[in-house]
Amino acid sequence: MLTVTQIEQAQARIQDIVRCTQLICAPKLIPGSEIYLKTENLQLTGSFKVRGAFNKILQLTSQERARGVIACSAGNHAQGVALAAQQNGIKAVICLPSSAPISKIEATKSYGAQICLVEGGYDDAYRRALELRDLHGYTLLHPFDDDAVIAGQGTIGLELYRQNPEIDAVVVPIGGGGLISGIALALKHLNPQIQIYGVQSAGAPSMQHALQIGRVENLSRAVTLADGIAVKQPGERTFTLCKRYVDEIVTVTDDEICMAILALMEQHKLITEGAGAVSVAAVMSGKLPVSGRRIACILSGGNIDVQILSRVVARGLLIGGRICSLYIELVDKPYQLADISRIIGQQGGNIFSVRNEFSEAGTDIHNAVVCIQLETRDAHHITQIKTALSANGFSVL
Amino acid sequence: MLTVTQIEQAQARIQDIVRCTQLICAPKLIPGSEIYLKTENLQLTGSFKVRGAFNKILQLTSQERARGVIACSAGNHAQGVALAAQQNGIKAVICLPSSAPISKIEATKSYGAQICLVEGGYDDAYRRALELRDLHGYTLLHPFDDDAVIAGQGTIGLELYRQNPEIDAVVVPIGGGGLISGIALALKHLNPQIQIYGVQSAGAPSMQHALQIGRVENLSRAVTLADGIAVKQPGERTFTLCKRYVDEIVTVTDDEICMAILALMEQHKLITEGAGAVSVAAVMSGKLPVSGRRIACILSGGNIDVQILSRVVARGLLIGGRICSLYIELVDKPYQLADISRIIGQQGGNIFSVRNEFSEAGTDIHNAVVCIQLETRDAHHITQIKTALSANGFSVL
Repeated sequence: MLTVTQIEQAQARIQDIVRCTQLICAPKLIPGSEIYLKTENLQLTGSFKVRGAFNKILQLTSQERARGVIACSAGNHAQGVALAAQQNGIKAVICLPSSAPISKIEATKSYGAQICLVEGGYDDAYRRALELRDLHGYTLLHPFDDDAVIAGQGTIGLELYRQNPEIDAVVVPIGGGGLISGIALALKHLNPQIQIYGVQSAGAPSMQHALQIGRVENLSRAVTLADGIAVKQPGERTFTLCKRYVDEIVTVTDDEICMAILALMEQHKLITEGAGAVSVAAVMSGKLPVSGRRIACILSGGNIDVQILSRVVARGLLIGGRICSLYIELVDKPYQLADISRIIGQQGGNIFSVRNEFSEAGTDIHNAVVCIQLETRDAHHITQIKTALSANGFSVL
Repeated sequence: MLTVTQIEQAQARIQDIVRCTQLICAPKLIPGSEIYLKTENLQLTGSFKVRGAFNKILQLTSQERARGVIACSAGNHAQGVALAAQQNGIKAVICLPSSAPISKIEATKSYGAQICLVEGGYDDAYRRALELRDLHGYTLLHPFDDDAVIAGQGTIGLELYRQNPEIDAVVVPIGGGGLISGIALALKHLNPQIQIYGVQSAGAPSMQHALQIGRVENLSRAVTLADGIAVKQPGERTFTLCKRYVDEIVTVTDDEICMAILALMEQHKLITEGAGAVSVAAVMSGKLPVSGRRIACILSGGNIDVQILSRVVARGLLIGGRICSLYIELVDKPYQLADISRIIGQQGGNIFSVRNEFSEAGTDIHNAVVCIQLETRDAHHITQIKTALSANGFSVL
């Protein structure tokens, strides 16, 4: 089994190559607790994966280096492997499902990797990677169930302890389990009292399930905004380490993840992907005991498509009551819209779109419905505006 | 005139309060040059303004502290003053134009400041601040034309030199000129060979204009996406310092700023506001000699409304040829849309929206026009897709 010595060796190997990402204090995130953010989203390639990839690639034999490496991933592991291979003059082939977003393909290409697009899903791409490995003698780099990879990710634990030895608990995203396994092993060694909390997406709780039933099993589906941790089956090595070192695993919903991504953008000017924000989602939604404690949340990555990010923002604003759509029935007389606008303005709402809709089902044939989108402070503010409209004789649907 | 000693004193005063923001290497931003990002967008309150605010407030007399401070700003200066006052137990009043966005008002409130919303624009809010100052004896904190404020911002120069003494040139946003004046004074003292470049928005080139005509003048308008540097009139103190220490000032357009914001989001997972991204916009658009040199760009702030950010992203993708809308005439026969979709798919385009429009002016009365929005790699890719459609007999409008 993996030892702390291997993590220390990994640190010596990669510390001059990867970034020592800042640990940023986040005083406003949860009042009454001391939250710190370990900003691995600002790591090279935009995620922690580059640590494990470098640690693995730096240990390959000269024969293995000469033949090249292969990986199957549409995401952070692909970019980590591509960069580590490029900087060591090693050929890297990355198999991706053909449905992978253009932005991720381009990012991986930009690190010099050879892209192999495979029709179908992840499983098809993985099968193709095995074929190419057998055909060309490439070394296949597993994204998490590999001691060198886990040791590389564990260097975050050593860094964190050096940056703040007073941390009481660490909150870590779990996909296959490589990140939390390495961090937990390192930190429990340095401070046996520290608590290690894992967070999975409610749509892909594979490690939580494995620990509950006592063995690794394949989930039938893994669908979540946090695509970086949408893993159906955890690793055997990572399962064993989590069983031993992880204190609790909680899950978060996509809506909770949206709120966390939005909070990190607005309060900390940091972009995190779904998987990168689950640790903050878990503390913001009150699923972990944080009150009065020093908590470090690992922001594991920031590789989110900017168009998806815009949708996440819109969803977060809607859930938080900061934008809303009001449907109001207009009777057939003048100044209706002027009155509505005035009332909303008086209540401090900020209209940004107005759309008239006629012949809406359920309304009088002579009347129309207007849909008004406005910026508000919170759910209470929305209620206040609706009440003012009703008090002035308008029917808010 | 301000001296380096005052900047060194400012550093001693505030260095345990503000963050020493990381200087991040940005190898992919401009191939062939070494670009570094000074991440003041990750500073407390999301901008560098907190440095000057703390340095000023920490030097108030006990009488001035007891009476409180006032500032006029809808932006970063407001938040900097509010936080510095709050942490020193001083009352802060912030005058804002009533048109200020809800998110900025809420952010300023969150630091405990008393908000005074004034009908009208910035000038009206400023007049009200002067009235309240006279009425209550508050100390008015000027956003830039104040030695203590300039000295506070200048601490960035001292930090930068310590983080990397080999920097050849620094690129700094200019609004009123406080930031660049402090940084230039500090850095030219430490390294007389260093080049200091200023960047203004093309919509508000007040300092560039002042240096050209040799005196400070009031611009008739200042309209730009970079609201943080939309300053009509630079300061007298800052004008004198810029004349002496700034080597060149260039301007950037809103479209260039959009591209810079997008690049920082995608490549570095950093959110910058318009003003915060102009330094990167200037180097990305080739307006400064960067080739083969070590350049530090100051990312001055990250306080951008998330809804505006979504619009900036959409605009950046459009300009970069990464999304496009194709209008294609459909003749009245079956399978038209299926054919179009197939051709676009074969060319690697990713359709995300289809809208049929009838009776479009200029087309045959029997025909319809379909608007297809798709994700593409770049302008060349768009041309390629259009060519393929034309080759298959479709009329792309």
